[in-house]
Amino acid sequence: MELKSLTEQKSLLAELAPGKRTRLRRLLFEFGPGNGTLMLLPIDQGIEHGPRDFFPNPASKDPDYQFRLAAEAGYSALACQIGMASKYYPDYAGQVPLILKVNGKTDVPSSDQALSTCNAGVEDAVRLGADAVGYTLYVGSPRQDADLAQLRGVREDCERYGMPLVVWAYPRGEAIDKKGGHVSFYAIDYAARMAMEMGADVVKLNMPKIDPEKDKDAPAPYNEMEVDEAEAIRQCVESAGRALVVLSGGSRVDDETVLTHCREVMQAGGTGVIFGRNVWQREWSEALEIIAQIKETLLSNVRRTP
Amino acid sequence: MELKSLTEQKSLLAELAPGKRTRLRRLLFEFGPGNGTLMLLPIDQGIEHGPRDFFPNPASKDPDYQFRLAAEAGYSALACQIGMASKYYPDYAGQVPLILKVNGKTDVPSSDQALSTCNAGVEDAVRLGADAVGYTLYVGSPRQDADLAQLRGVREDCERYGMPLVVWAYPRGEAIDKKGGHVSFYAIDYAARMAMEMGADVVKLNMPKIDPEKDKDAPAPYNEMEVDEAEAIRQCVESAGRALVVLSGGSRVDDETVLTHCREVMQAGGTGVIFGRNVWQREWSEALEIIAQIKETLLSNVRRTP
Amino acid sequence: MELKSLTEQKSLLAELAPGKRTRLRRLLFEFGPGNGTLMLLPIDQGIEHGPRDFFPNPASKDPDYQFRLAAEAGYSALACQIGMASKYYPDYAGQVPLILKVNGKTDVPSSDQALSTCNAGVEDAVRLGADAVGYTLYVGSPRQDADLAQLRGVREDCERYGMPLVVWAYPRGEAIDKKGGHVSFYAIDYAARMAMEMGADVVKLNMPKIDPEKDKDAPAPYNEMEVDEAEAIRQCVESAGRALVVLSGGSRVDDETVLTHCREVMQAGGTGVIFGRNVWQREWSEALEIIAQIKETLLSNVRRTP
Amino acid sequence: MELKSLTEQKSLLAELAPGKRTRLRRLLFEFGPGNGTLMLLPIDQGIEHGPRDFFPNPASKDPDYQFRLAAEAGYSALACQIGMASKYYPDYAGQVPLILKVNGKTDVPSSDQALSTCNAGVEDAVRLGADAVGYTLYVGSPRQDADLAQLRGVREDCERYGMPLVVWAYPRGEAIDKKGGHVSFYAIDYAARMAMEMGADVVKLNMPKIDPEKDKDAPAPYNEMEVDEAEAIRQCVESAGRALVVLSGGSRVDDETVLTHCREVMQAGGTGVIFGRNVWQREWSEALEIIAQIKETLLSNVRRTP
Amino acid sequence: MELKSLTEQKSLLAELAPGKRTRLRRLLFEFGPGNGTLMLLPIDQGIEHGPRDFFPNPASKDPDYQFRLAAEAGYSALACQIGMASKYYPDYAGQVPLILKVNGKTDVPSSDQALSTCNAGVEDAVRLGADAVGYTLYVGSPRQDADLAQLRGVREDCERYGMPLVVWAYPRGEAIDKKGGHVSFYAIDYAARMAMEMGADVVKLNMPKIDPEKDKDAPAPYNEMEVDEAEAIRQCVESAGRALVVLSGGSRVDDETVLTHCREVMQAGGTGVIFGRNVWQREWSEALEIIAQIKETLLSNVRRTP
Repeated sequence: MELKSLTEQKSLLAELAPGKRTRLRRLLFEFGPGNGTLMLLPIDQGIEHGPRDFFPNPASKDPDYQFRLAAEAGYSALACQIGMASKYYPDYAGQVPLILKVNGKTDVPSSDQALSTCNAGVEDAVRLGADAVGYTLYVGSPRQDADLAQLRGVREDCERYGMPLVVWAYPRGEAIDKKGGHVSFYAIDYAARMAMEMGADVVKLNMPKIDPEKDKDAPAPYNEMEVDEAEAIRQCVESAGRALVVLSGGSRVDDETVLTHCREVMQAGGTGVIFGRNVWQREWSEALEIIAQIKETLLSNVRRTP
Repeated sequence: MELKSLTEQKSLLAELAPGKRTRLRRLLFEFGPGNGTLMLLPIDQGIEHGPRDFFPNPASKDPDYQFRLAAEAGYSALACQIGMASKYYPDYAGQVPLILKVNGKTDVPSSDQALSTCNAGVEDAVRLGADAVGYTLYVGSPRQDADLAQLRGVREDCERYGMPLVVWAYPRGEAIDKKGGHVSFYAIDYAARMAMEMGADVVKLNMPKIDPEKDKDAPAPYNEMEVDEAEAIRQCVESAGRALVVLSGGSRVDDETVLTHCREVMQAGGTGVIFGRNVWQREWSEALEIIAQIKETLLSNVRRTP
Repeated sequence: MELKSLTEQKSLLAELAPGKRTRLRRLLFEFGPGNGTLMLLPIDQGIEHGPRDFFPNPASKDPDYQFRLAAEAGYSALACQIGMASKYYPDYAGQVPLILKVNGKTDVPSSDQALSTCNAGVEDAVRLGADAVGYTLYVGSPRQDADLAQLRGVREDCERYGMPLVVWAYPRGEAIDKKGGHVSFYAIDYAARMAMEMGADVVKLNMPKIDPEKDKDAPAPYNEMEVDEAEAIRQCVESAGRALVVLSGGSRVDDETVLTHCREVMQAGGTGVIFGRNVWQREWSEALEIIAQIKETLLSNVRRTP
Repeated sequence: MELKSLTEQKSLLAELAPGKRTRLRRLLFEFGPGNGTLMLLPIDQGIEHGPRDFFPNPASKDPDYQFRLAAEAGYSALACQIGMASKYYPDYAGQVPLILKVNGKTDVPSSDQALSTCNAGVEDAVRLGADAVGYTLYVGSPRQDADLAQLRGVREDCERYGMPLVVWAYPRGEAIDKKGGHVSFYAIDYAARMAMEMGADVVKLNMPKIDPEKDKDAPAPYNEMEVDEAEAIRQCVESAGRALVVLSGGSRVDDETVLTHCREVMQAGGTGVIFGRNVWQREWSEALEIIAQIKETLLSNVRRTP
Repeated sequence: MELKSLTEQKSLLAELAPGKRTRLRRLLFEFGPGNGTLMLLPIDQGIEHGPRDFFPNPASKDPDYQFRLAAEAGYSALACQIGMASKYYPDYAGQVPLILKVNGKTDVPSSDQALSTCNAGVEDAVRLGADAVGYTLYVGSPRQDADLAQLRGVREDCERYGMPLVVWAYPRGEAIDKKGGHVSFYAIDYAARMAMEMGADVVKLNMPKIDPEKDKDAPAPYNEMEVDEAEAIRQCVESAGRALVVLSGGSRVDDETVLTHCREVMQAGGTGVIFGRNVWQREWSEALEIIAQIKETLLSNVRRTP
């Protein structure tokens, strides 16, 4: 079965209430590459994986490294948890927008029943001068009952304060593992839709991986669709509807793959990328170099007006 | 054992407080087929099943398709979750009434312990100009303790704001599976009564399926009753008492079955139908066609004054 | 070991605060058989068992049947859940007092871990003009921790609004099943005491069943006591102390048993009965007949001034 | 290893805020044996064990028996749950102080995961004119997380209202059973310390039982200590620090044991006893007799100024 | 793989809001060894382990021993739970600062699912004149969901009241046990980062233990790193970023080890130590002696300006 994309999304900004519009516009046009794109720097690996992610580039163990990088290289925003937003962001306030990530967890226990509870709130974001709030939703986790209820509270507060809501839409948990795994097209596509349905303004997605063997376990018709990576990400972006999509990077890959992903998400109608380890696991000048290439790739592949 | 229906329900509208009456009257008489009927369009499959339901008609992946359909084909109301109500409904506000569905979940984990937590609230519905609130109650689930307590909060807020309460009354969970399954007459009949007892104004039911083999596992006297589908739905409608009943469609079936179900629920004293996939999995003109037939069938089989 | 009753309970009404006294007096003296008795009509089987209880008398499937019966036959009060109290009671408001049952559950899942969460509250009761609130306590359930905490909230609200509290004191759960079962003298006696200790004004008890074989599993000295049904119910009534006791009927039995139970509970110092299926599973005139006999039996066996 | 007591506790009353001091002084000096002692009458067996504890003395099944006993025999205070405090205490208000026990549970389910949730609160105690609040803490239970959080709320309210906090410090649960059992010196000693650390003003302890066989399972150095009962209780009293200690009686024992326990706890620096079944399982005059002996034993063995 | 430390932390005090700065400065400069160091005395073993920790020095069973020691030996602060803060601290108020430890638990049940719930709050700390609040975070516990959410509340209240937050960052639970254990470099390093990310101002860490056999189970690259204790603690201190680090002592070790640990943590950029049993399990004059040596070692190895 082949799918055809029939829609072109309407402007998201045009629908948003003033507070959300003001803040999101700042990320899309005033900071970063601009022109309606998003180049985001995530620094939540210290909580999600522990310090081990910083070892390839010891300088990165000091959060100041990433903060400085985000400010000097001209990012649309950086995303981190409350502790660093409180102790490191003040030095860069006004130089780069902040996305306060309000939930998180260690990866020490298994993620069979994944749930990230909130360690901060939208009021913290307001107080710290953040321009958006980030929330990790584990789509399909057996604990989705608690997750969706918690997200509701964050969404409501985002509406109350005019704060854009960025949802890290991650398929996770023992149930998704049995249906083809958490990076399958089926899983990412579902996650994109869920995030949009739950009120996300921006959705962070992982690149779907096509694996014909595993995909057989996915529900129909995913179990017998033949799509390539580019088509899969295009479908996923479409599933997010009017919500903007940024592509997540994951662990470090080679430069060509980084840039291919940038191209693919933009051509799929996405708005940008959120690459962490692929950037700050590099030494300073090397990091600046790949960032420049990412920027250029984003800007030269813009398809959508946000 | 044969059952005989002895009652004719009194008017529901006459009992309702002003806010509920105003809003529900709008759906029953001012929009849709009118004359006290309900023709509802559900768009919650994206969260309940994921994007796969949209593949038979790729145009439907864009929520705007269903919104436009609801408005242009003249529906009594459409039902969707908070994300789409926020980002898509504004374009159609005033053109078709909105039922805000306040809970939901993915179908990734098993539904043995089904529970849908709230991702939105009655105040959201008020803010968005909705005319009713929808809630999925998993009747007989082992987690009914949490479900009933949560529904209580929604019901109370509905009373506070004069918002009609539509209950998706779905038998679900490992316990009902052992007693004949979630589409048995026993299960649907129980669900109808529960919804009414919990304060529903409108109850959404699935069509009971008669399966003599499975029904043996149902409690007496259901395990040895001999009723046909028409009689079963008549009994279920009766179990909902003064609450109005709309019949749910489920996955796509042939046109004749669609219209037969319309006839049966109306003749049973029901108020209308809520068919999703059976409508919007069709291409635009084909969809309009079946909608016209549904409308006509509803209007020509009205038995009850709401 | 033989037990002797040594106490005569003091007046409950004399101890109650004005609101509770006003309302409870209404049930005991102004409605129903009067003279300090209680003849209550429960209509919560639709939620606790589903519609199947109505099949022996199809007319009873329409809640209006029971409401009319309660009003016309002169009941002390009827007890039902929020849905029917909202949609059916208005027609009979002022003609028969209402006990709003605030918790309940289906019997679809096993009752090994029984817990009934609240689907309504004392404020609902006040708003609807009810004269008492009903709560089901599952004495001995492994989830008693949640149950007792929830009951606390109901009790406190009852005190706040001067609303009498009727506790359905039901031994239940896998633990009581291992100690002789939920209808043993041990179990009912414990339930009576618990309800009183938790603040009940009226306690609803099932008739204890003497079963020497099962009673061996009860804790000492119940495992070797030799008491008959009359003595057992007398002990249970005594265990409820100053709280009034009404005897529950359960599934339908023959007329003589119905009246014997009436006699026994009154002679034990009880205050009345709460028989549902034994009454409304009968056709109208037959129902009126047994009601008349129950009334007479209650009045001619009064032992206690409430 | 031998232990030596090195400390003499400072006055508790001197540290307490005015409300707590006023109320606790009443129990220690104005009622009961006086002279800084506590002779408390517990009546919570009806909820903790059911009516079976009353069978040895049927008169005791009527709570009025214990209330009258407490008032006429001159107790420092009686302790009971909300139901009896509401319906029986009013007759004796002002004649004997009340300790409102705010949590409790039946013993029907196993106590492997023991937790007693609150069925009443400190405000109830204030409203009823109580002079202290009682709370059962199950030290070492796997559910200590919920227990300690709940106790926090009670403690805070006690501070808010100047209400002394009496903690029933009971080792309980499957974990303590594996470490020598809940009446071992190790267990009681830990419980005494926990109660003090959690903010108890008065701690109720069971008499530790020395059982060399079981004690081998206790953590070092308890597993190889050689202490007698008198030394063990002395250590436990010391572990409670400035909190006052009352010794609990448990099931009925012979008179000499009762009085020995009184002596031992007082000589250990304790403040008194809380004996229930050992008192009210006796017929009236017999009860008065043992009470007189207890009183005398307490007064003649006072070691500590509270 | 070898790691190199590249960063020198900026001043923490300079970043803190006035309330936090005032109070933390008091501990760092006005009390204790001063010069930006922290010498803390923990007295929470009575709740965490029970009275057995006091047996090596029976005098220590009386909390007054430790309070007096803290005041007379000139500690930066002492840390204890609510009960002792209420009943013992008043005698030493103003003589030594107080860190109110707001959560805790017994070690009776296994710590596979470790979680310490709050038994006191930041408002208690304010009321008692405390200068900081202590919280135990079980990093990597399967119950981290509840832990992180609870810590959020404490952190927010600390911000509200300007109260410094000291996090006892303890790797714990069945999951960490399978990845090399809770004292591995991997585990402590992760804990340090988590505490900082969650908003700690001061982090209490255990000394990492290098155990090549166990470390093989840790995630890469920890499973093949070759670092000694000094380097490991240096890395962990670095992972805590701008948060100050104090090293925890654990069970009693010989004097040389005590002082080596002091040296190592200071040379690693740490701020001080929090040794309990290693100090107060000694007789008075012996305790004063080691304290003097600790003080001297701290002061002569200061590397960081807080």
